[in-house]
Amino acid sequence: MSGDVAELIIVNQAFYDAHEARDAQAMADLWLHTDDVWCVHPGWPILRGWPAVGQSWDAIIGGPGRLQFILTDVVAQVEGATGWVSLNENLVGPGETSTVATVNLFRFTDDGWRLLAHHGSPVMASL
Amino acid sequence: MSGDVAELIIVNQAFYDAHEARDAQAMADLWLHTDDVWCVHPGWPILRGWPAVGQSWDAIIGGPGRLQFILTDVVAQVEGATGWVSLNENLVGPGETSTVATVNLFRFTDDGWRLLAHHGSPVMASL
Repeated sequence: MSGDVAELIIVNQAFYDAHEARDAQAMADLWLHTDDVWCVHPGWPILRGWPAVGQSWDAIIGGPGRLQFILTDVVAQVEGATGWVSLNENLVGPGETSTVATVNLFRFTDDGWRLLAHHGSPVMASL
Repeated sequence: MSGDVAELIIVNQAFYDAHEARDAQAMADLWLHTDDVWCVHPGWPILRGWPAVGQSWDAIIGGPGRLQFILTDVVAQVEGATGWVSLNENLVGPGETSTVATVNLFRFTDDGWRLLAHHGSPVMASL
């Protein structure tokens, strides 16, 4: 089973749309609900398994923050049933901007591409 | 073509051994030398392509730092010719310790597993 890169880019964008729209259900629908998913929010330790990952998204999306994502340097690759997108998330929030270097890892399923991992890493302005 | 997870873990360990030993040649040999490799050092922006990635390793390995890596929460997965290892790098340096949440992404080749991407993300102690 193999997915294509155009679909991968659409699903990757849907991930950011769900985040911006603060749509916890859309976010949950984009993820595999398995033990092997993992997530690293910027500065956070690794969270493993859907219960911990899903809970973190509920907290972030349900929290007071409101972010706009401007994606740059987006590169998507597919190898069989695995796909990944590496990119910069340029975040525009109230009174602050920052960049997060990110990789999103996807598995192709009967329902299309689903997130297996999200790993965001703060880019330090001082470098 | 498919590699196995036991070999993947060995090559992942070789990456840290090369780093600790400050062996730039061993480090270079572990990477694909292609345009699609990328690397995010902790706090750094995305570097793309072997020339930029290789240069960064030469600078880091040739620099004054000396680090010991204690790896924890190591999870390796293989899907066809793609493999990835997510883990914590617990770094012991002179007068400081820190944790880096990391994913290493590998492609299986005629020469075995080779690094396609390394993405390390500083875990903030304040969280």
